[in-house]
Amino acid sequence: MITVHHLEHSRSQRIIWLCQELDLDYRVISYKRDPKTSLAPVELEKIHPLGKSPVITDGQNTVIESGAIIDYLLRNYGNGRLRPRIGSLEYDQYQQWLHYGESGAILPFMLKLYTSKIPEGTSALQPRIDSELARHLTYLESALKDVDWFVGNEFSGADIQLSFIAEIAPILYSLQDYPNLVAFRDRCHNREAYRYVLANNNFYAYGPR
Amino acid sequence: MITVHHLEHSRSQRIIWLCQELDLDYRVISYKRDPKTSLAPVELEKIHPLGKSPVITDGQNTVIESGAIIDYLLRNYGNGRLRPRIGSLEYDQYQQWLHYGESGAILPFMLKLYTSKIPEGTSALQPRIDSELARHLTYLESALKDVDWFVGNEFSGADIQLSFIAEIAPILYSLQDYPNLVAFRDRCHNREAYRYVLANNNFYAYGPR
Repeated sequence: MITVHHLEHSRSQRIIWLCQELDLDYRVISYKRDPKTSLAPVELEKIHPLGKSPVITDGQNTVIESGAIIDYLLRNYGNGRLRPRIGSLEYDQYQQWLHYGESGAILPFMLKLYTSKIPEGTSALQPRIDSELARHLTYLESALKDVDWFVGNEFSGADIQLSFIAEIAPILYSLQDYPNLVAFRDRCHNREAYRYVLANNNFYAYGPR
Repeated sequence: MITVHHLEHSRSQRIIWLCQELDLDYRVISYKRDPKTSLAPVELEKIHPLGKSPVITDGQNTVIESGAIIDYLLRNYGNGRLRPRIGSLEYDQYQQWLHYGESGAILPFMLKLYTSKIPEGTSALQPRIDSELARHLTYLESALKDVDWFVGNEFSGADIQLSFIAEIAPILYSLQDYPNLVAFRDRCHNREAYRYVLANNNFYAYGPR
């Protein structure tokens, strides 16, 4: 059985969602953030030395990083579902989105999150951070032109990976100028599996606080 | 023929290194940073709308993100070299390192890089950033205990991905307490292919400036 170690208000909820989409045999252990610092609790370091979430355990395996976990679950338990055929052009795109969702795309949001704690001291950085946020959201917006999903217009692990960007954007920045991303986020939220995990897990919510 | 669009003093040099390791038919087009802002030049937006490096073009394909590019090149042109067998435990680890190298591991360095421009305004953030840097470097250091390379003790694309962390750490922070990482970086620098691309490309240097 797969165990998803889920930190409240974090990017780990999409892993629960993926397990539900695949109808896997899984369980969720939830962890609360420190009420003062909002950081992950030290208990998570017993699961993996970095002490971060998401992290899954599966028998002898422990896997970190959202993109690697999505790849791991689909490769080992997907039976071809939710990802393009290996060797297709769409598979290249799928892998690129998996990486992009937690590297290029997430960086300006994390810069925004950190610097939002001391906005007066970081005012010189804000124009640059904001222009990077707009750049990445514009790119994602254009990728959704005339399609519902990012790869071959079929729902895949790439959409689950990128859903987090669409969820945190309105909290940390804005989605006002990105109607395709708003519609994409709403499509994610309307998936049966998403609605199920939202209703059946404590500490599940849209994006970080 | 594969074209590597290489921005000086950037993480794209490891892609040139990988092409050389694989003895691929490739060419490098180099781009200079704006001398005032240090940002990538607008010409890169003609290659990909994000205007970032690394980016490769290969016939009709354009691929961004270091991890996705390494995966793409090894999957399509590696003939099994520099990556573990699909289905092995090492393959899971390899994928995890590819993701980790440009998500979890890079974030505190990018925070450091950005905030180093206004250190006086961000002093409240520095202890947290430094503790995160130490956490990730400690994790990488322990992964190199008694081994030369990150996956199955054989040189792979994961080492190429993670070499960038070992290269920028002494510039943005320190490697003083991480002898395994210093030795790993030196092993990378001593690879025949690394020495070749270092000697034969303009604008190739260790890490960002």
